[in-house]
Amino acid sequence: MQTADRTPRPWQKLGSRPGPDLKLFTVRHDRLRNPRNGLDLERVVLESVDWVNVVALTPAREVVLVRQYRFGTGRVTTEVPGGMVDPGESPEAAARRELQEETGYTGDTWTPLGSVEPNPAFLDNRCHHFLVENARPTVRPDLGAGEDIGLLLCDAAGLQAEIAAGRLRHALALSALSRVFDLWGVGTGGARERIPNR
Amino acid sequence: MQTADRTPRPWQKLGSRPGPDLKLFTVRHDRLRNPRNGLDLERVVLESVDWVNVVALTPAREVVLVRQYRFGTGRVTTEVPGGMVDPGESPEAAARRELQEETGYTGDTWTPLGSVEPNPAFLDNRCHHFLVENARPTVRPDLGAGEDIGLLLCDAAGLQAEIAAGRLRHALALSALSRVFDLWGVGTGGARERIPNR
Repeated sequence: MQTADRTPRPWQKLGSRPGPDLKLFTVRHDRLRNPRNGLDLERVVLESVDWVNVVALTPAREVVLVRQYRFGTGRVTTEVPGGMVDPGESPEAAARRELQEETGYTGDTWTPLGSVEPNPAFLDNRCHHFLVENARPTVRPDLGAGEDIGLLLCDAAGLQAEIAAGRLRHALALSALSRVFDLWGVGTGGARERIPNR
Repeated sequence: MQTADRTPRPWQKLGSRPGPDLKLFTVRHDRLRNPRNGLDLERVVLESVDWVNVVALTPAREVVLVRQYRFGTGRVTTEVPGGMVDPGESPEAAARRELQEETGYTGDTWTPLGSVEPNPAFLDNRCHHFLVENARPTVRPDLGAGEDIGLLLCDAAGLQAEIAAGRLRHALALSALSRVFDLWGVGTGGARERIPNR
């Protein structure tokens, strides 16, 4: 059931001027008119390629996690493998590539888990989630010059421990994992896998 | 259970230079040394205040959602109420204020639902989630000049419909909601509330 008061209208875009190129993003300044009061405002938009991340399950149903130093928070985090979609690349191809490059794992059953908007207030992109099953270490990881990545295999209890320890707080990693594990179940004794075995 | 190969080390920060002030963020360029290969790299960090958002449940256990035009994606979205933590303000005070300003609702039982890192790769902040129960419209909404917000009340089925329609894709709104509703349950016939009534 839904009850709505009114549907807000889109804002008219009056103009746009480029901002600095931050490499990770291109900054754009939009001039927009608020339809509620006619006021003109400038708002910043970060133009970004789409992102992907992957819940990779081994044959023993452990999830393959990556540990790396993150520059935003200045801490070593635990996350699911992922990265940026290259120009002309499909999200699933990017997910396969990132999993292989970061971990050396490849799998044999890929399932799209949907996508989210990382922050529609100022980012224009999506993050696409994937599940891969029967993931095994088959190749050497191929880390970029700007990467230093350790691996962590976790069952549902190990995942819960990593969250409880405050190392797994990345909203997009949790978003992907929450499609496969019931991370926040009340009275279930912790995280548990929810996708049935095939 | 957990199995790790090695723990990556923090990167040494060699220096920092300020970038442009984007209002929503202050840009910082850090120069860092990769401990794996000794290479120096420059990485961008967006310094931001913390954010909050709120799952507000009415006495009838409907969730109070906001609809607004979002500048990043250029579309009208459905989200939970939320915003930025003001200087000196606690996250819970910010959550109470944002709920009241955006919707006119106030509630009587506040529960912290934990926090996430919106993106530790380039953002230094957290987003704090709260639950408030017995939320009722008690005051007039107090929208800022740059806001135009409509309200939507949803039960679990209505929430599911909003997600299925592609209007509720904000990762941080879904992160908050996933603490209260089992959004992705398999074979459960849709979203259902998971927090027990008190």
